[in-house]
Amino acid sequence: MSRQQRTVFYLSDRTGITAETLGHSLLTQFDGIEWKIINVPFLDDIDKARTVLAQINQALACDGHRPLVFSTLLNPEILAVIKQADCCIFDFFETFIRSIENELQQPFARMAGRSHGLQHHLSYFKRIAAINYVLAHDDGVNPKNFTEADIVLIGVSRCGKTPTCLYLGLQYGIAAANYPLTQEDMPALNLPKILEKVRNKLFGLTLNPSQLHFIRQERHPNSEYASLQQCQQEILWQESLFRLFNIPYLDTTRISIEEISATILDRCGLKRQLYG
Amino acid sequence: MSRQQRTVFYLSDRTGITAETLGHSLLTQFDGIEWKIINVPFLDDIDKARTVLAQINQALACDGHRPLVFSTLLNPEILAVIKQADCCIFDFFETFIRSIENELQQPFARMAGRSHGLQHHLSYFKRIAAINYVLAHDDGVNPKNFTEADIVLIGVSRCGKTPTCLYLGLQYGIAAANYPLTQEDMPALNLPKILEKVRNKLFGLTLNPSQLHFIRQERHPNSEYASLQQCQQEILWQESLFRLFNIPYLDTTRISIEEISATILDRCGLKRQLYG
Repeated sequence: MSRQQRTVFYLSDRTGITAETLGHSLLTQFDGIEWKIINVPFLDDIDKARTVLAQINQALACDGHRPLVFSTLLNPEILAVIKQADCCIFDFFETFIRSIENELQQPFARMAGRSHGLQHHLSYFKRIAAINYVLAHDDGVNPKNFTEADIVLIGVSRCGKTPTCLYLGLQYGIAAANYPLTQEDMPALNLPKILEKVRNKLFGLTLNPSQLHFIRQERHPNSEYASLQQCQQEILWQESLFRLFNIPYLDTTRISIEEISATILDRCGLKRQLYG
Repeated sequence: MSRQQRTVFYLSDRTGITAETLGHSLLTQFDGIEWKIINVPFLDDIDKARTVLAQINQALACDGHRPLVFSTLLNPEILAVIKQADCCIFDFFETFIRSIENELQQPFARMAGRSHGLQHHLSYFKRIAAINYVLAHDDGVNPKNFTEADIVLIGVSRCGKTPTCLYLGLQYGIAAANYPLTQEDMPALNLPKILEKVRNKLFGLTLNPSQLHFIRQERHPNSEYASLQQCQQEILWQESLFRLFNIPYLDTTRISIEEISATILDRCGLKRQLYG
């Protein structure tokens, strides 16, 4: 059986982040379909809507299947144009908003851009401060300021510390530092001295040695550093260290940066500073 | 009238990103309510579900209103426990998945963690490569490599270049560089020489001078650099430059990093490398 080809449209008055997030989580539940994804953010005038209407009908003709359309559009006139298309439309607001209106006993604002817009100056500054903190405390830089961190990730080179810290800063406003465990530390089964003061903020990242080998090969092919043996030794050593010092840690082998970050938040009971 | 207090729960088998995105985009449409937000990611066993059930009932007793519960739970036994609560529950999958099954003529996988999990090695590497590119080309560093960038953001100090580049790298896998326009460049109405080779990749960020003044004051209070006059001059100068050289630019004054990033993608026709 050949792979089914279908087109999906994400339509939004603003960024399209909500429409995509919701559609993506539904569609990833179906296997064997090749999706052609068309994002239409900032769909805010009737002429644009007519162009999209034509695109949807064209996709139907081309695929031989109705396109799926996920919409967070709030403007009723624009929605009315889109609804003329022969498609399978999922309107997130229409689906839920009436029940919430009933429950809260008040009408909704029908204002676009609230979800991923700039709601508060305060959270903008918190976010920027967290990003600046992460950038200034990456890879063991300025460890004397680690006492101000919300969390300090530790682990050997290429275990995912930097992207995780950036995600924690950008999405949650968390001041996340990270410190590399290096080969030089390996002879002793001891924490680097500089980390002793922040023992209760440490969180270890580890992964499968063959995965680490694979990642390091990308960067420094056929080096000693990337060799499977070296990766095995470093991982064995760091996991012993984590256990010996009772440092919580996570195996990140088959999980995404989003999952690593959400797990850290959950397990460390960190309070996020940003929502939305 | 005093502000209504209500509790909202975001329940998920995994990260909770989808549940939160959904709930947040709906609830931000209602004003005047003080939300107490309870995130429950990784809700994956019956005992945890019973604890959450008790929490929901307790919130009802405490607020005097039914809590709102947004769920992306896929496990039917866990859902069954939660549904015993006296709450207003929005079950994301149940609401949409049957229509999609019908449209696609196939059953859904009912597997948690697909949406924000690690689907493909390829996209993991793309993402890491983009983040590394951003970090290595922040604030005018290594401009000779700007020819490899997908986009080069320019603008005066504190106009939002770095957070936007990080977001573009982390969320979309875009290799985004940035280069600061500085006071030293100001006497001439000319682009810095190093940017000439990448003229077609340039995108300007600007903002309201009083907002820039406010942001700079946070960092260097009462400095010449932060003075309103200095901010006015720099903004006037850079906007003239953008217009003179036909560089597309965006006023970021009241918009979030998400909106800035989505606008840049849209206006520059950049192809994102990551989904979900």
